[in-house]
Amino acid sequence: MNPDPPTIPIMQSPPGAETVIDGRTYLYFVGTGYLGLQGHPEVARAACEAIGQYGIGSATSRTGFGNTPPVVEVERRAAEMFGLDDAFYFPSGYAGNHILTLALSERFDAVFVDELSHYCVLEAAGLSGRPVQKFRHRDADDLHAKLRQRLAPSARPLVLSDGVFAARGEIAPVADYCSVLSEYAGGILCIDDAHGIGVLGENGCGTLEHAGLFSASVNAESDDDEGTRLLLCGTLSKAIGGYGGIIPGSRRLIERLKQSSPYYAGVSPPPVPVAAATARALQLVMAEPQRRTQLHKNAGLLKQGLRRLGIATDDTPVPIVCLVLGDAANMQRIQRQLMQRGIVVAYMAAYSGLGPEGALRMAVFATHTEQMIGRLIDELERVI
Amino acid sequence: MNPDPPTIPIMQSPPGAETVIDGRTYLYFVGTGYLGLQGHPEVARAACEAIGQYGIGSATSRTGFGNTPPVVEVERRAAEMFGLDDAFYFPSGYAGNHILTLALSERFDAVFVDELSHYCVLEAAGLSGRPVQKFRHRDADDLHAKLRQRLAPSARPLVLSDGVFAARGEIAPVADYCSVLSEYAGGILCIDDAHGIGVLGENGCGTLEHAGLFSASVNAESDDDEGTRLLLCGTLSKAIGGYGGIIPGSRRLIERLKQSSPYYAGVSPPPVPVAAATARALQLVMAEPQRRTQLHKNAGLLKQGLRRLGIATDDTPVPIVCLVLGDAANMQRIQRQLMQRGIVVAYMAAYSGLGPEGALRMAVFATHTEQMIGRLIDELERVI
Repeated sequence: MNPDPPTIPIMQSPPGAETVIDGRTYLYFVGTGYLGLQGHPEVARAACEAIGQYGIGSATSRTGFGNTPPVVEVERRAAEMFGLDDAFYFPSGYAGNHILTLALSERFDAVFVDELSHYCVLEAAGLSGRPVQKFRHRDADDLHAKLRQRLAPSARPLVLSDGVFAARGEIAPVADYCSVLSEYAGGILCIDDAHGIGVLGENGCGTLEHAGLFSASVNAESDDDEGTRLLLCGTLSKAIGGYGGIIPGSRRLIERLKQSSPYYAGVSPPPVPVAAATARALQLVMAEPQRRTQLHKNAGLLKQGLRRLGIATDDTPVPIVCLVLGDAANMQRIQRQLMQRGIVVAYMAAYSGLGPEGALRMAVFATHTEQMIGRLIDELERVI
Repeated sequence: MNPDPPTIPIMQSPPGAETVIDGRTYLYFVGTGYLGLQGHPEVARAACEAIGQYGIGSATSRTGFGNTPPVVEVERRAAEMFGLDDAFYFPSGYAGNHILTLALSERFDAVFVDELSHYCVLEAAGLSGRPVQKFRHRDADDLHAKLRQRLAPSARPLVLSDGVFAARGEIAPVADYCSVLSEYAGGILCIDDAHGIGVLGENGCGTLEHAGLFSASVNAESDDDEGTRLLLCGTLSKAIGGYGGIIPGSRRLIERLKQSSPYYAGVSPPPVPVAAATARALQLVMAEPQRRTQLHKNAGLLKQGLRRLGIATDDTPVPIVCLVLGDAANMQRIQRQLMQRGIVVAYMAAYSGLGPEGALRMAVFATHTEQMIGRLIDELERVI
């Protein structure tokens, strides 16, 4: 009756600069543990202590007595990190756009979404029942053209996009989108910043902060339709080192989301150990900004190294590099040979944003040393 | 910057027969911890041990090296509990219907959904892009009428419903739905059994097992359109005492779901401590069937007690009782007075399935003693 053992690899340690996979320790450049907190001993201790006090979960919704201290603490600390009033913490970052688009559906008349957005963004685009139009990836001019072609006079557009694209590591041109939207009263730009939060901006507030657009008016709730509204959702499972989705915002917006969303009254809240770990991780992210500084430095080292090999890369502080080196077979060979040499990068055969040949994706963490990054570059040079 | 302390109550212990809320220990008849496992010491220990080994989470998708041993173990144990080949474990039970309807969308042409289904079922109904028709709550005759009125000739219907309704505690008439669907080639019945799994049926396989409909053909994958297909999804966050969504099934169906769903390749998998706790809880559920026997006995005691007070109740083994006693103000008074006497039941002002006056909802657990249930009945008699 039991299934065969899965043939996909098994991760046998926390993800980190060195990670155990199928019994062997590798130099690891995969995934999203950018700040290196997933296996931090204080994060682990916070989780264990909370289990002892509160068990695994409250087994009822937050409105039905199921509001546990760790969940409340995550919201308080996330609000602090973003410098906003409050926050809504929910079980999975996948749902962030769903929550925002459903709660604010009477504020927009049509949805325009970057064609290479993450699955969850595309899924959320259709949920409101408004017409959905895709625009070309990261192309503010095409967004502009599509708005002129497809948006009825005086209708209000909602623009959806990833902030940092998971596989490709590109940053959305949010300032350009804002200037396009400035022609439309009631325009809204909503950014899923799963890979930007904790990574970009002086305070780790993500893509909007990186672009100089972050302020107390992000995720505010206002009745007037003047100016472009900026919305933001994200995850605490990646750079932050915890788990679950987050929307920080004004007290009024958060109240509105909680009152309208089944992800508040109609689900089990994030489980206790995970919430406690996440709260502690948020504290560490705020107390140790040098993690982010080091991350940016490491992203620079990786990209410089690749340029020395003649591989063109951007020079943003995003710790993701996406390389298309020949066809799928060639990239699979490179991935396999690196793995034989003790280094793991990902070959992604299919993911939102990638072409049919797939891509090699490398992620660097704050916890990689200069020597580790150098070794990746050296071995890559040999196997390319 | 920090928000005001929330005014909703805080749960300060695991949910159980006795639960600490806002500093006071109450007799607790709320939520979904039906088998009493949320604070079980072995479940807690499994979670802590796993954190020490694997950290909080793999921070990458299961296809990208993020497949951890506890997540794989949950799937193996869930498959064992249901006696099926394999299972798909994903971050939240909320997504179960989303995963099934999207993966199988070319197998049906129209969706018929119980009007009082849970939010997530109604949300999933719209995701496939097929026309959606609601039918009257638990009314197989109305489903029959709607199928005759709305389904094009030779079109294939998908019927969606909760198995056990969360607030009302009613069981869906799945056998009647099957006999209605038997007239339609390619008909599918898909049950969200969040409150049935672990609770109903000899092996805890839920509503379909309770109705004598559970077999290896549930969640099988077959190319022929003969006969009614039965689909099942659920959660491990409620009776099971862990956290996350589950779909057990044939190897072929599970493979198909994993290959098609962004909840496999496009999300962080369920976090490590929660997966480890859930795997241990599944073991306990299987090894200790007396928990379920006791739960059914306790459901009987609660319902008999209510009948002695002249309150009509069903006599199913579902451990949920939903009472509408006068208007909202009266029910809020009863809830408040019980709480003053040290007993917590829920007054639900709004939830899928409830009228505008709301309802009192009581849940009994395997861990309540006869004396505890007697005390609820006695105090209820006094305050009614």
